[in-house]
Amino acid sequence: LKNRQVILRARPVGIPQASDFELRDGSIPDVAHDQILVRNRVLSVDPAMRIWLGMPGGYVEPIALGSVIRSFAVGEVVRSRHSDFLPGDKVVGLFGWQEFAAVDPKSILWKIPSEEFPLSYSLGVLGINGIAAYLGMTLICRPRAGETVVVSTGAGAVGSGAGQIAGILGARVVGIAGGPEKCRRCMEDFGFHAAVDYKAGASIDDALSQAAPGGVDAYFDNTAGEISDAVRRHLNVGARIALCGTSGVAGWSPWPHGERVERHLLNKRALMQGFVVTDHVERYSEALERLGQWVRDGNLTCSEHVLRGIDRAPEAIAYLYEGRNHGKLLIEVG
Amino acid sequence: LKNRQVILRARPVGIPQASDFELRDGSIPDVAHDQILVRNRVLSVDPAMRIWLGMPGGYVEPIALGSVIRSFAVGEVVRSRHSDFLPGDKVVGLFGWQEFAAVDPKSILWKIPSEEFPLSYSLGVLGINGIAAYLGMTLICRPRAGETVVVSTGAGAVGSGAGQIAGILGARVVGIAGGPEKCRRCMEDFGFHAAVDYKAGASIDDALSQAAPGGVDAYFDNTAGEISDAVRRHLNVGARIALCGTSGVAGWSPWPHGERVERHLLNKRALMQGFVVTDHVERYSEALERLGQWVRDGNLTCSEHVLRGIDRAPEAIAYLYEGRNHGKLLIEVG
Repeated sequence: LKNRQVILRARPVGIPQASDFELRDGSIPDVAHDQILVRNRVLSVDPAMRIWLGMPGGYVEPIALGSVIRSFAVGEVVRSRHSDFLPGDKVVGLFGWQEFAAVDPKSILWKIPSEEFPLSYSLGVLGINGIAAYLGMTLICRPRAGETVVVSTGAGAVGSGAGQIAGILGARVVGIAGGPEKCRRCMEDFGFHAAVDYKAGASIDDALSQAAPGGVDAYFDNTAGEISDAVRRHLNVGARIALCGTSGVAGWSPWPHGERVERHLLNKRALMQGFVVTDHVERYSEALERLGQWVRDGNLTCSEHVLRGIDRAPEAIAYLYEGRNHGKLLIEVG
Repeated sequence: LKNRQVILRARPVGIPQASDFELRDGSIPDVAHDQILVRNRVLSVDPAMRIWLGMPGGYVEPIALGSVIRSFAVGEVVRSRHSDFLPGDKVVGLFGWQEFAAVDPKSILWKIPSEEFPLSYSLGVLGINGIAAYLGMTLICRPRAGETVVVSTGAGAVGSGAGQIAGILGARVVGIAGGPEKCRRCMEDFGFHAAVDYKAGASIDDALSQAAPGGVDAYFDNTAGEISDAVRRHLNVGARIALCGTSGVAGWSPWPHGERVERHLLNKRALMQGFVVTDHVERYSEALERLGQWVRDGNLTCSEHVLRGIDRAPEAIAYLYEGRNHGKLLIEVG
């Protein structure tokens, strides 16, 4: 039995490409005392991985050359030398792009409590993406009923969750997405009230004036960049901006320039706050409980885009940044 | 008896100059039922007046051409047709650049409770400037003991208050100011722990690395612009930025560009929030009580720069923006 692994071959320049990665046949790792051997079933592909792979301007230690790619994954315990875990347990954690991982308990984020939902949900709507959407919306955006909330990458794994949660909380939701198909999904699949296609070639400002004629009370920002410059021109007094990602910015070296934000924030007494979901581990169980209930009730839905086989992993991040995925991008391990 | 008034002659382009204003001999206004006639003693000169005078990008109705210049002032009630006010009462309010104003009670911000402090303090350290410093520091910057707080325009009316309050709360305070004399005042008069001269021609980054070697936990921003771009490169995780003014930005039409802030705020899980002191009228009395106690105890000091005679008013805003004042800029009425 082999352990197929995806290794970092070269430090990516710009968007990580398939050529930056390498597939390797490793061996099944030994399981030390207190460790757990997990067999991965589904691997996650997330925009933040670009930062983990060493994009200048990031905030975490980049993955070393020659190492297994760090990623969230969901899998099954196949061997356990720790009393909290038993073979057959389904677990979520930073298990990496590989078939098998021997991990310490602290690498396991949570045990999946039941088989009520597909395993893959624990990487998306009932995973870190859903938790990010929930926390950014409830801790920073805090929409009141009737307010207008804008979400960039509205059809994405985090954005679709954030927009639906805003809708559940009674807000009017405007999604920003690239292309008519993603805008259609914002409206039809996720129930947003309006969608703005930033790739339509028309002015985002004009589209926002139409989609949010009463202005913007909260903005869940997954892109930064020119999309966000436009949204800030439409803020209402007391607006809140949750900064969750910067996928609309090509790179941070050299540091990019854009419209100054200070006068917008001052005129509108607005707040802009960055957050990183993994800072809030103590809120995961509350978040997962509420998200699960919304999914169960049919108020929160998701879509998934599954690439089959770990050999698809090397191309996955470029796939994501080119916007070719329709739904949460996942890799199903063979 | 005449009522000397300063009138807006021309809509300023850039920094308001003396030629944009005109001195006029008005008459002492009639006092309608429920009104109060105030004789101004001291007029305030504030950076925000540039916005009130119609700078593009502002958030308030600009002063109409031919009208008396809107400003804070402190004066004495000389006639009252309202039961809450008696001749001799000292009052603070938006009385304008003129010798006499007949005002409704809502134009009076507060009555000065005692003669313990000089009247002029009610326009500075015990006025809107001090309240802005107090609220921005306690509501947004929220320094904990031992943290590092940076204040731009550190020797200014708001900045000197903000920095001293941060010091009272136990923070290590770094002032940013233009020129060696203002930096000296940050250290000697206001007790800051370090000062950065942004006009020194050296890199602000290097100076901040020296002045705040442990990074910046909170930033009270009175300037925006390149000074703030530099400060944001030194933020610590969890930093708070209070946006109080944008005096470091020449104008907002065309809208200026600068370093994108999103990645800084995201990496550092930082918060940036605009505030306008007049939104918080309900906190004025709490603020004035605490500020007064600090002044009484000798922990909070101020300096004033007084121009004598209302005929000095037309040049005052340019004076302020050129940084020629040393201390809170005031106009003592004849």
